[in-house]
Amino acid sequence: MADQLPDLIEEIVAEGMAEDPASLLAALNGQDDVYIATLLESLPVEPRLVVWEGIPREQKLNVLVEMRSDPREILIDNTPHNEWASIFADIYADDLLELLDSLPKRLVDLAYESLDSKERKYFREASLFPDNQIGHWVNHEQLVLPSNAKVREALRLLKKDVPQHCDSIYLVNRTGQFTALVKINKLFSAEEDKSLLALAEENITTFKGEDDAMNASITVQRSGLASLPVVDENNTLLGRLDITSASELVNEFYERQVMASAGMDEDEDLFSPVAKSAKNRALWLGINLLTAFMASWFIGLFEGTLQQVVALAVLMPVVASMGGIAGSQTLTLIVRGLALGQVTPANIKALMIKELKVGGVNGVIWALVIGIVAYFWFTDIMLGVVICLAILFNIVAAALAGVFVPIILDKLKIDPALSGSVILTTVTDIVGFVAFLGLGTLFLL
Amino acid sequence: MADQLPDLIEEIVAEGMAEDPASLLAALNGQDDVYIATLLESLPVEPRLVVWEGIPREQKLNVLVEMRSDPREILIDNTPHNEWASIFADIYADDLLELLDSLPKRLVDLAYESLDSKERKYFREASLFPDNQIGHWVNHEQLVLPSNAKVREALRLLKKDVPQHCDSIYLVNRTGQFTALVKINKLFSAEEDKSLLALAEENITTFKGEDDAMNASITVQRSGLASLPVVDENNTLLGRLDITSASELVNEFYERQVMASAGMDEDEDLFSPVAKSAKNRALWLGINLLTAFMASWFIGLFEGTLQQVVALAVLMPVVASMGGIAGSQTLTLIVRGLALGQVTPANIKALMIKELKVGGVNGVIWALVIGIVAYFWFTDIMLGVVICLAILFNIVAAALAGVFVPIILDKLKIDPALSGSVILTTVTDIVGFVAFLGLGTLFLL
Repeated sequence: MADQLPDLIEEIVAEGMAEDPASLLAALNGQDDVYIATLLESLPVEPRLVVWEGIPREQKLNVLVEMRSDPREILIDNTPHNEWASIFADIYADDLLELLDSLPKRLVDLAYESLDSKERKYFREASLFPDNQIGHWVNHEQLVLPSNAKVREALRLLKKDVPQHCDSIYLVNRTGQFTALVKINKLFSAEEDKSLLALAEENITTFKGEDDAMNASITVQRSGLASLPVVDENNTLLGRLDITSASELVNEFYERQVMASAGMDEDEDLFSPVAKSAKNRALWLGINLLTAFMASWFIGLFEGTLQQVVALAVLMPVVASMGGIAGSQTLTLIVRGLALGQVTPANIKALMIKELKVGGVNGVIWALVIGIVAYFWFTDIMLGVVICLAILFNIVAAALAGVFVPIILDKLKIDPALSGSVILTTVTDIVGFVAFLGLGTLFLL
Repeated sequence: MADQLPDLIEEIVAEGMAEDPASLLAALNGQDDVYIATLLESLPVEPRLVVWEGIPREQKLNVLVEMRSDPREILIDNTPHNEWASIFADIYADDLLELLDSLPKRLVDLAYESLDSKERKYFREASLFPDNQIGHWVNHEQLVLPSNAKVREALRLLKKDVPQHCDSIYLVNRTGQFTALVKINKLFSAEEDKSLLALAEENITTFKGEDDAMNASITVQRSGLASLPVVDENNTLLGRLDITSASELVNEFYERQVMASAGMDEDEDLFSPVAKSAKNRALWLGINLLTAFMASWFIGLFEGTLQQVVALAVLMPVVASMGGIAGSQTLTLIVRGLALGQVTPANIKALMIKELKVGGVNGVIWALVIGIVAYFWFTDIMLGVVICLAILFNIVAAALAGVFVPIILDKLKIDPALSGSVILTTVTDIVGFVAFLGLGTLFLL
């Protein structure tokens, strides 16, 4: 199915299918929500709006739910107001939670009115948690039986509707506290009057609403179960975190990391309006400009030296680049370790020693290589010595910064995947330039 | 559970629990494979080997399977040869496939001998596919019935052992071709003599062995099913791709992207031996050194200009930095679009126009800001004009390179997540320096 997508994009964008509503409708007919959502995200704004108009009204809500916020907001802004009542006709609390940040206040109110009283309660409860906690993502459809129930009752329960992603029955005591989980697959071979508790799984992880969404999601992915229970502080069963939500949360986490490295967020639209896109990116450019000016200011301290030894200016990018690359390698390793819970106060010292040794080895090797190249290029032995020392110094400093910058940011609750690289590069640029030009001033004038 | 991990790392590393085997064993007792695997990856090599010795032999295989290659290889190298027969006692084909790249040839042979004839066949079949195709990851445990079977037969089949991550029964015709999928949850409310075909799901995606592992895995994650069927070119059922494998493949894909941005692979060990780690990273440093020397060479063409206008040397990092950042923003967006199949030949032109406009807007704004700052800093109006033009030119060139570098790399089957940033930075550095110093030569001498 994914293979057809580029063809359809081609037909719409290059061959003008958007101007032929009949063939467009035929191409979209029967395609699932994810396919259509991906198609819409791949289209420039104009054909995107044409395709959006052609999607059956009853499918529009599910397509919006599958999309990233930025491309979705363009569609929301261009949907006639009289369509919304029918789009929201079958909305559930989890749909509204997913769309919450994209909808203007009046549409949130309209959607909220379409929820029944149970769904309104779920919506209000989930809204109390930020979206990095699993309380925000609780699935409330589940199979529940009292702890003393027998297999017979479970089989009777299963004759009613079984929710999606549901491979287990949760047992609760009289006050609603979670006691055990029984896999549905175990019921087939069990005697009808056997107690369900006797079939319960051992060592089931339960989550609290405040638990970190990313860690909990990875636990669900690795559990071998379709979902794990969520309880409150009294162990009362609230719902469950299912594997589909868990996978979406993990994928979003990773996508955020990848996009953050360039100062963008994971909702960035391939075809967002120029003004919006330019604004989104301007902040990051501005921050980097400040750090670049800082580096320039330090270089400016050595204007006199640069004037006399112009080779220093020629070689400056080499010093900065080697420090930046070596530091970003350490940084990337530590950021991953922090995200996976593998970097802790207990092993920082051991990590730092190892990174310093790695930096030392690579520092010595590349410092010598660069020193020799610089010597032959400018036939100046002292210039070779100066750049050799500066590179060694900068690569070792980069290793230190690569360990400490993310750990300090993490302590300050700042995402090291977003801010780590800009701070690290500032450190390695300034250390590199000052070391190189400072040593140059000492030895070359 | 994840919360206890930092405490245990602390006790082992800082409080010397590794020297007290009894308390160490007590702490590990009953922990699952993933927990122990994560613990081992978080420990420096010495305590890691002590903990490894303390793990029950029957758990060692499953722990190895859960680990990344690099940290795992240290354990494999330090396991006494006479332990392997018992570690491999209950090995399956998929365990051996996972460990394949980490085991020396003689251990692969030993493990292969422990497989029964059916598992040996699965292993040989899977080995024919590279690990980026799903043929490598097929799960062969499934529930299969003939297409004309009734609910009664399905219920009888379910009384036997139901495999993990299995929520469906696959129907095949007489020649073994896949015909339909029936969700187990639908059987409870069905009449015993109803035909299974009548309960089958519609629009089930099937995979071929050659299908891309990442795309197929995302399809499984979004299917709402615990697995989807894999067939051969004649539609004969081979097995299935289950949600646990799918999630692992997707997570590995993303982790590879994050690590690739710093020229590392996702198996990099937090505590790999210094020599190995230094070697892994040296290549990336070397490649970047070449590009830095290229940039230096271009700067060297303007030695005369730099000697006379030293302010140009001071401001060089600003020009390079703004181009690099702007380009990496476009690059990151395009690399994600390529990975998701959203960037295709049909929309490249529209994308390029949009990125050029965004680059134009941010280029004009920041060029003016930088030009004004440079004018006041060096009180030289022409210097302000020169850097203003150079920044504008470089940011627009960066947008072009950000679109074309990843698309060309993708066409050449080179991973743009790995090589994109280094090539892009080379382009923006050289364009930036040549524009800035070239304009400086024209207008400032």
